[in-house]
Amino acid sequence: MTNINIRELARQLKLSVSTVSKALHDSHEISDETKKRVLASAARLNYIPNPYASSLRGRRSKNIALVIPEVADSFFSLAINGIESVAKEKEYHVLIYLTHEIYRNEEAILAELRAGRVDGVLMSVSRETVQTDHVKSLIENGIPLVFFDRVCEEIDTARITTNDFAIACTATEHLIKQGCDKIIFLNVSRTLSITNRRFEGYKKALADHNIVLNEEDLVFCRTGADENYEIIKNALRMNPDGVIASVENLTAPFYKACSELKIKIPEDVKFLCFSNLEIASILHPSLTTVTQPAFEMGKVAATLLFKALEKTNFDLAKESLEIPSSLLIRDSTAANKIIPPV
Amino acid sequence: MTNINIRELARQLKLSVSTVSKALHDSHEISDETKKRVLASAARLNYIPNPYASSLRGRRSKNIALVIPEVADSFFSLAINGIESVAKEKEYHVLIYLTHEIYRNEEAILAELRAGRVDGVLMSVSRETVQTDHVKSLIENGIPLVFFDRVCEEIDTARITTNDFAIACTATEHLIKQGCDKIIFLNVSRTLSITNRRFEGYKKALADHNIVLNEEDLVFCRTGADENYEIIKNALRMNPDGVIASVENLTAPFYKACSELKIKIPEDVKFLCFSNLEIASILHPSLTTVTQPAFEMGKVAATLLFKALEKTNFDLAKESLEIPSSLLIRDSTAANKIIPPV
Repeated sequence: MTNINIRELARQLKLSVSTVSKALHDSHEISDETKKRVLASAARLNYIPNPYASSLRGRRSKNIALVIPEVADSFFSLAINGIESVAKEKEYHVLIYLTHEIYRNEEAILAELRAGRVDGVLMSVSRETVQTDHVKSLIENGIPLVFFDRVCEEIDTARITTNDFAIACTATEHLIKQGCDKIIFLNVSRTLSITNRRFEGYKKALADHNIVLNEEDLVFCRTGADENYEIIKNALRMNPDGVIASVENLTAPFYKACSELKIKIPEDVKFLCFSNLEIASILHPSLTTVTQPAFEMGKVAATLLFKALEKTNFDLAKESLEIPSSLLIRDSTAANKIIPPV
Repeated sequence: MTNINIRELARQLKLSVSTVSKALHDSHEISDETKKRVLASAARLNYIPNPYASSLRGRRSKNIALVIPEVADSFFSLAINGIESVAKEKEYHVLIYLTHEIYRNEEAILAELRAGRVDGVLMSVSRETVQTDHVKSLIENGIPLVFFDRVCEEIDTARITTNDFAIACTATEHLIKQGCDKIIFLNVSRTLSITNRRFEGYKKALADHNIVLNEEDLVFCRTGADENYEIIKNALRMNPDGVIASVENLTAPFYKACSELKIKIPEDVKFLCFSNLEIASILHPSLTTVTQPAFEMGKVAATLLFKALEKTNFDLAKESLEIPSSLLIRDSTAANKIIPPV
C-alpha cells in the first residue's frame, strides 16, 4: 500500500493543507469533528506525516547538508572545518554528501534533500553540472542554498567565491617574469566555472604580454591519477618552460612525470598549482601555489545560510561575496641563474 | 506539547507495540474497533510516528551514516571511496558525520542517529573515546553498526582492522636493520587503540633486538600542526637516529622541523610514517610509509553492514576481519653509506 502525502490527504478531504496539518497536531483552532474526520482519513489512506517537514513538526531538523564533489582535496577539508566552526555554535549537525564529480549523483542527493531532511544546503557543484533544475527545485521547496567555490551563475542565491580570474592572471604574470614564454595550462573540465575562470585569467596575462596562445597549450586532464600521469608526460614532450595546474591533484602526477622524463623543476620547467596542500612547502622542490581562503569561504557560506534560517525575509540573492586567494611563491617557480658569458 | 513514542502509546493503550504499529498501518490483522481506539489515542497524545523507523514504515531510509574523526587524512578519504563503491551499488546515500576527534561530538551524532535517521552506521572512533554507552545504545535501538580501523573492543559487532601491531613491529625492525638504535615513537593519544597497538609493535621489535626503551622515546603530539612542529623539534634535540610517526599529519611538521634544525633525512635521522599519502613518493626525500588497505577496509565494512541490513539473523559479531598493511620502503629510511677507513 502506498503512502499519501498531506496535500493528497487534504485534497481527498476537501480541506486546506493548513487545516489538515493543524488537525493532525490537535490545534485548538480546529473542531473536534474535523479532527476526527482527518484522523480517520489519515488512517484509511495510510497517510504518514512527512518526517522532515519542519513547518509541520514545529521544530527544525537541526541539520544542514554539505554537497561537494570529494574530500580528497585540501580545499574541501579546510572548507568543511570553516563550515563546522559555525554549525557547532548553532548546535547543528553537518551531513556531508559526496557527488564524486558526477551530475547524476548530485541530482539524486538534491532530490533526497528536497523532502526536507535538512534545513539548508551548502554546495559546490560537480565538474559535470550544466543543468540546474535540481537546484531550482530544491530552493522552490523552501530549502535555502548557498553556493561556495563552484557555483551555478544562473541561480539567484548567495555565492561565495574567490578571485579565480585575477589570481590566475597574477600567477601567469609571475611565470612570465621568471622567464617563461611557453606556458601550458592543465585544465580538468570544459564546463566547470572556476577552472574556466582560471583559464581566462591565464589567457589575459598571455595577451597582455603579447604571448601567443597555441591550441596545444590548453591540456585537459581526467579524474584518474594514472591517466593524468600519461597526459602530463605527453604535454611535457611539447617542451613548455612553465606549467599551471588548475587543481591540486595534478601535483603528484606532474612531479612524477618530470622525474620519469628527467626534467628538472624549476630549471627546465617552472610549475605552479591551485592548491591548499599543507605539504606544498616540503615537496622537492617546494611548490608555488595559488592558495584559496578555504576555511574562510566555508565559514562565510555557513554564516549566510544560518542567517537565512534565522531571519524571515533575509535575501540570500543579495549576499554574494568574493574572498581573494594568495599566490605563495616557492622554489618550483624560481628564476634560473644567468650564467655569465665566458 | 511533547510528542510520545509508539512504546509510550502502546503502554497507555495497554496494547503491544506490534499491535499498535499494525493498527496505525491499517493491518487486516487488527479489528476496526482497535484501530479506532489507537488512532483516537494517537491524536489525543500527539503521537507522531517515528519518521525513520524502517520497520514501522515498511521502507528503509536508504541512508547509512559514516561517523569518522576527520577527512583531512588520506586514509579516510580512500576508505570513503571504498564505502561509497558498495553503497552506490545498493542505491544508498552515505551521510558523512565528522567528530573532529571530540567524544562529545561523537555522542551527539550517535544520539541523533539513534532515532532511526539511517539504516546502519559505519564508524571509526575519536581519539577521546573511552566510554561506549553511546554505541551500545545505538545498537540496542536496532541500528546495526560496523567498526573499521578505530574500534571499541568491548562492543560485540564486526570490526574491520589492519595488523597494526605486526606491521609496526616490521617497520621498527626495518629501521633497526638500517642501523638505528635510538628510535623515537610519535604517538597522538593515550587512549586510541590503533596507535597504541602500533606502539606495542614498536616496543616488541626493540625488545627482540635488545634495544632499551627509554621513557623519553615515546613522544605525544597534539592536534594542531604548529604545536606538533615545536614538539617534534624538541624530540629531535634528543638526537634520535630513527623516528616513527603513528599518524599521517605528523609528516609535514617533521620535515619542517628537520629543515629548520638542519637535520638531514635519512643521513642524520631515518623517518617513516603510517600514511596513505599519494604524494609520499614525491617528498624530498621520498617517504617510507606503512600503508593501510584503506579502500579495501571501507569496502569490506560496508559490505558487511549491507549483509546485516539485508538478512535477518546475520550475526555481525562473528564477522570481524583483519586486512594487512604494507611497508613501502623509500628514501627516508635509506641506509647510510659506509665510508671506508682511510
